[in-house]
Amino acid sequence: MSSEDVRAAKKAPQKERTKLTASDMAKQQREISVSEFFTKNRHLLGFDNPRRALLTTVKEAVDNSLDACEEAGILPEVWVHLEQTNGDDRFRVRVRDNGPGIVQSQIPRIFGKLLYGSKFHRLKMSRGQQGIGISAAGMYGHLTTGQPVTIVSKTDPGADAHYYQIVINTKENEPQILKEQVVDWDAQQGTQVEIELEGTFQRGLWSVDEYLEQTAAANPHVTLHYRAPDGAEQDYERATDVLPPEPRAIRPHPYGIELGTLIAMLQDTKARTLQSFLHTDFCRVSKPAALDICRRAGVYENARPKRVANAEVEKLLNAIHETKLRKPPMDCIVPIGKELIEAGLRKHFDAGFYVSVTRPPAVYRGIPFVIEAGLAYGTGTQQEGASAKVMRFANRVPLLYNTGACAVTHAVTKLNWRQYSIEQSNGSMPTGPLLILVHMASPWVPFTSESKEAIAPYPEIEREIILAVQECARGLRRFLRGRRRRAEEQRKREYIEKYIPHIGEALQDILKFSDAERTRLNKKLTDVLERSRGLPA
Amino acid sequence: MSSEDVRAAKKAPQKERTKLTASDMAKQQREISVSEFFTKNRHLLGFDNPRRALLTTVKEAVDNSLDACEEAGILPEVWVHLEQTNGDDRFRVRVRDNGPGIVQSQIPRIFGKLLYGSKFHRLKMSRGQQGIGISAAGMYGHLTTGQPVTIVSKTDPGADAHYYQIVINTKENEPQILKEQVVDWDAQQGTQVEIELEGTFQRGLWSVDEYLEQTAAANPHVTLHYRAPDGAEQDYERATDVLPPEPRAIRPHPYGIELGTLIAMLQDTKARTLQSFLHTDFCRVSKPAALDICRRAGVYENARPKRVANAEVEKLLNAIHETKLRKPPMDCIVPIGKELIEAGLRKHFDAGFYVSVTRPPAVYRGIPFVIEAGLAYGTGTQQEGASAKVMRFANRVPLLYNTGACAVTHAVTKLNWRQYSIEQSNGSMPTGPLLILVHMASPWVPFTSESKEAIAPYPEIEREIILAVQECARGLRRFLRGRRRRAEEQRKREYIEKYIPHIGEALQDILKFSDAERTRLNKKLTDVLERSRGLPA
Repeated sequence: MSSEDVRAAKKAPQKERTKLTASDMAKQQREISVSEFFTKNRHLLGFDNPRRALLTTVKEAVDNSLDACEEAGILPEVWVHLEQTNGDDRFRVRVRDNGPGIVQSQIPRIFGKLLYGSKFHRLKMSRGQQGIGISAAGMYGHLTTGQPVTIVSKTDPGADAHYYQIVINTKENEPQILKEQVVDWDAQQGTQVEIELEGTFQRGLWSVDEYLEQTAAANPHVTLHYRAPDGAEQDYERATDVLPPEPRAIRPHPYGIELGTLIAMLQDTKARTLQSFLHTDFCRVSKPAALDICRRAGVYENARPKRVANAEVEKLLNAIHETKLRKPPMDCIVPIGKELIEAGLRKHFDAGFYVSVTRPPAVYRGIPFVIEAGLAYGTGTQQEGASAKVMRFANRVPLLYNTGACAVTHAVTKLNWRQYSIEQSNGSMPTGPLLILVHMASPWVPFTSESKEAIAPYPEIEREIILAVQECARGLRRFLRGRRRRAEEQRKREYIEKYIPHIGEALQDILKFSDAERTRLNKKLTDVLERSRGLPA
Repeated sequence: MSSEDVRAAKKAPQKERTKLTASDMAKQQREISVSEFFTKNRHLLGFDNPRRALLTTVKEAVDNSLDACEEAGILPEVWVHLEQTNGDDRFRVRVRDNGPGIVQSQIPRIFGKLLYGSKFHRLKMSRGQQGIGISAAGMYGHLTTGQPVTIVSKTDPGADAHYYQIVINTKENEPQILKEQVVDWDAQQGTQVEIELEGTFQRGLWSVDEYLEQTAAANPHVTLHYRAPDGAEQDYERATDVLPPEPRAIRPHPYGIELGTLIAMLQDTKARTLQSFLHTDFCRVSKPAALDICRRAGVYENARPKRVANAEVEKLLNAIHETKLRKPPMDCIVPIGKELIEAGLRKHFDAGFYVSVTRPPAVYRGIPFVIEAGLAYGTGTQQEGASAKVMRFANRVPLLYNTGACAVTHAVTKLNWRQYSIEQSNGSMPTGPLLILVHMASPWVPFTSESKEAIAPYPEIEREIILAVQECARGLRRFLRGRRRRAEEQRKREYIEKYIPHIGEALQDILKFSDAERTRLNKKLTDVLERSRGLPA
């Protein structure tokens, strides 16, 4: 259709225009199942192109495995096998772990229902949050290849291994079981999931390889075995036998609560009085503080929570903000740590200078979080004028896509890098042989989409990232200035040294020195030079 | 907590580690309602900061009003009132239209249930798509102020006006009716929605003002009345009494269909045979083409659709791709049009040069779409070295946020602008007094998030945007070259003119001309010069 056709179509006499009435429209109103919604909007989940689809599938499965192992106190060992099945663009992804396994009755819904899981209704740091990822991967696999998701799971060495074939009924958002049976499985315990999907396998940037490499770097307690579609194998052995400390689940902090949530919590609480509700359903509210809040608000502390009127809830909320409460507890956050971040940078980037920092905890919307950052500077492998590279992590998971939407990118480009002796055009990425790493750890990371590839730029988060990167950049500036000063001194020294003999000769000539005197003078001049510059002779 | 504390916490002897078993974990597994999901992830819906929350609320309500009016064949008139209610940060948003109204029984779910609507299960170009927006705005309002959504609606002059107060029960994702009654309402028909919310009112970039102004520009058939919180009023009168042509709903095109969808469609169809299924459930499949597809696939054309095995469906899909079918019909798309785009640019930007283009329709994932673009060049109001400004529209709705994630931004920065005599650093926005407008029209616009502020960068879409902008940029290059050539000629002419008298004098001297002869010679030289350059004397 040419652009003339378009114009013609626009100017063509309108066909009888359908004029819908309210009741015509009412007949079209329908409920939309969340699976239908995400099938049509699959790019929200990270399935907008075949390359990314393959990565997202591996990522969702591996993240689930690591979460399960850690919650069960097991050192994770994960096998990732990619296999081409049919033509260039079909792959079978198999991910197996040595985790705690899944109780038989839960298997279908965990893998065959969107918005189902154990991690959403709590505040505890973990890789998964939403109960969407692995089911969405299975849904995409079925959509593109017609194949079901296959699961085998065993909860202990003496238990049966259960085998399932599942597809999602997208209209109902419910699992449909195609096959279930008990099978022989040589593993002691654990879970294995297999998804066949349309995808593209590539190495390099944004690849499964990169995701696994960065995962290994940020999770030194994990062993990964990886077999690529071409049969190439890569093992990442764990560097430590110690699991990271267990993050604790926390209750919400009152400062981050909103009116509507407070109203809903008052309806749902098991507490008998308002005071005990405030004390038990939130963190950091002691009994006296709870009483103080009630009194400030002028609401009776022994009131039944369900009976508190909305106008009173508003007073309570104001009273909460007027009451001094401690920050949320921080044992719900387990940072990677300065040392490990630096070690990760060293592994990734052969540089002359490394620096890293773990910021003190901060709070957004009542949710605590910690930002960590690292910088590596100086290899010759980068192209002249190339942008700095940024590695982003959230709860130890590498983020590879949606760079432009991420708070990390916003923060890095907002920073004035010229101040730190790094080149940058206004509002762009800094340029030079620079690697910047940022990690956000939190019981609830706000992602910009369900695919969890970018951190939403809440002002409090962006601010912390800026502070962390700034702290590193100041270290870098000292290093660069030191280096420049040393180079400068070296240059001056060489320059002066070159002239000392001539000065000696000139003075010999004028003052009629002997040769020995001249030599002594030269020596003395050199000594003075060394001392005044503090250089080793 | 200092960074020492962090280190101390990390190194502190671990408390007894909770080691969850599979059955402990099973107890935590729960369903997550879509309302709970979006409450916790409200930034996905455009409610991540108070300023944006206010804009999003207005936008969702106005977009719904415009859609309803157009479907009913009514020239839209919409009233937008913002009012400060309590302190600096609380607003009541009231949006009223002259649309067809809403049938009483539908009111609660339209405003009080996420994923409910008339626009999702069809392929028809409209502003709304998902059945989330207005309910989400109400949910945010209730969350931040505790106030319900208030609706009045009347379906014709003789009917009752129905008044509702509604909140969403987020656990169930179902409306909870606080009040319903018949009221006196002076309007003939239409709908009015009121939402009280926490927000910030600002003018300028990313504001309600900007959204309304751009909406008026892209929708010249709409009248908008706007009252800002400070009482300032602004009316945008419609410039035309003709509604845009009505976009037609289409059936899916076979080229964009995926295996899983095809399997599901075969189960759901009312067609009795495979051939008639292919003919009636898709667009652009004639009866002979349907027969051809069946034979190519080696599947019996009179087979019952529900009985077709998965392996045969795969053959069918291959056969579809081997069969030549026409592109999807294009009357499902109503572009804004070259003239209106240029008019919009002129209104917004006082420039020396305007160009616009409507591309021929293209297809992504089987869904047709049209890209339109416009350029305006050359005012002195911009700062030296400032980036070009980009205006983005999807189905006539201005997109203000998430610029970095949008296919439009990707395309504009990928283009090599220096080729068109415009300055640009590598991979950045071009700089200069330049306004770029891009509109995507489609029965299904893929947005990068539920807040619908950025177009997902599908390769086919990005390519079309690049082609559209390139076409405009070529026009701009011609203009800029012409301007430069004219300036150059002018310079040369002035230069030569300056010397003609001296040449005249020199020749008078050598050839012994009289003064009259010299004057004639000068005149003649000037004439020759004019003619050779084709300049008016």
